[in-house]
Amino acid sequence: MRLRNKPWAKEKIESYPQYIVPNPENFKGKWHEVFHNNQPLHIEVGTGKGRFITEMAKANPHINYIGIELYDSVIVTALDRLIEADLPNLRLLNVNAADLDKYFAKNDVERVYLNFSDPWPKKRHEKRRLTYKDFLKLYESILVDGGEIHFKTDNQGLFEYSLMSFSAYGMLLKYISLDLHNSDFEGNIMTEYEQKFSEKGNRIYRCEVKFQN
Amino acid sequence: MRLRNKPWAKEKIESYPQYIVPNPENFKGKWHEVFHNNQPLHIEVGTGKGRFITEMAKANPHINYIGIELYDSVIVTALDRLIEADLPNLRLLNVNAADLDKYFAKNDVERVYLNFSDPWPKKRHEKRRLTYKDFLKLYESILVDGGEIHFKTDNQGLFEYSLMSFSAYGMLLKYISLDLHNSDFEGNIMTEYEQKFSEKGNRIYRCEVKFQN
Repeated sequence: MRLRNKPWAKEKIESYPQYIVPNPENFKGKWHEVFHNNQPLHIEVGTGKGRFITEMAKANPHINYIGIELYDSVIVTALDRLIEADLPNLRLLNVNAADLDKYFAKNDVERVYLNFSDPWPKKRHEKRRLTYKDFLKLYESILVDGGEIHFKTDNQGLFEYSLMSFSAYGMLLKYISLDLHNSDFEGNIMTEYEQKFSEKGNRIYRCEVKFQN
Repeated sequence: MRLRNKPWAKEKIESYPQYIVPNPENFKGKWHEVFHNNQPLHIEVGTGKGRFITEMAKANPHINYIGIELYDSVIVTALDRLIEADLPNLRLLNVNAADLDKYFAKNDVERVYLNFSDPWPKKRHEKRRLTYKDFLKLYESILVDGGEIHFKTDNQGLFEYSLMSFSAYGMLLKYISLDLHNSDFEGNIMTEYEQKFSEKGNRIYRCEVKFQN
């Protein structure tokens, strides 16, 4: 994603603590205090402009959602969506995915969504891919037992790599589509990126994988 | 594959016992007697017209190969190739894949090749797919520990199904290509079917999977 410098972004983020949670480390192990209920929590790592997580939260009011996005200049667009939708079951975190375990305890999360993550195609950047084994370990450390990752991408190399990485970690590959938009999968909610690139004719790959204990 | 009736096929098969092994149950656990050496044995289940297995045997003289094909009218074409090539490290079996354990003992085989197997797309025919769990169990029962299946297909549904089936069986997905002919995989030997359908623009999918103990 192209990043534009938005010098006002930081100030705007700080003006909406009801949507972008400040000091999220305070809620580790007690996110129910933020949502005022005990609904399951699903998080999206790399939430971008927020279309996916906002639509998911609208469609599934009995699930709580947290969208995680590092870049100020991107999360402000997700913030605008959330200000408009004003959903009680959605919050955003402006933090680094590599620090997830600072903000979530084991069993806090039931599902992790990864959508169109940066492919980092060079072998020397493998460790930065959000499906690299160290990230899987991180997700496992905050998920319930048998928790799942739902992953979409149009990047063939990243999808091949990720399937192998999930398998090597001992995860169960419970659902795989090699052409999501021509499959019988129902209820797909497209990200901004997905809409743009599928219109160009790119195939969308999707899988659901599960940690096994 | 379209099957043509060839009433002379059976007789021809019987005329070449040096290539199409009669009574293969006699060699269970002692295939080295057929090849007169102890080289590793790789088998292809559903060998069709035999292009793949013949070229593999030519390229890899230090590996023994057995091509398995049920249909008389198809295996005679593979037989013609073998008569011409006269390779000491290749034999054919005119038997049903469902009976593999009648002909091979545990540890007889180091690798199983499956190429462009019948996709059996209807759910009620799942048990006939050569990557169904009962077939995986059968392959495991004749392979060495850590033995591998190398699988190619142009059928998207069969490939998706097979990856999930391998994963559910606890196998390691060690290599996956979602577009073999545009990948950096070297030394690919095309089957007759692969050549024809890739020329039509079909993507070829390929994986290497390993039994884990």
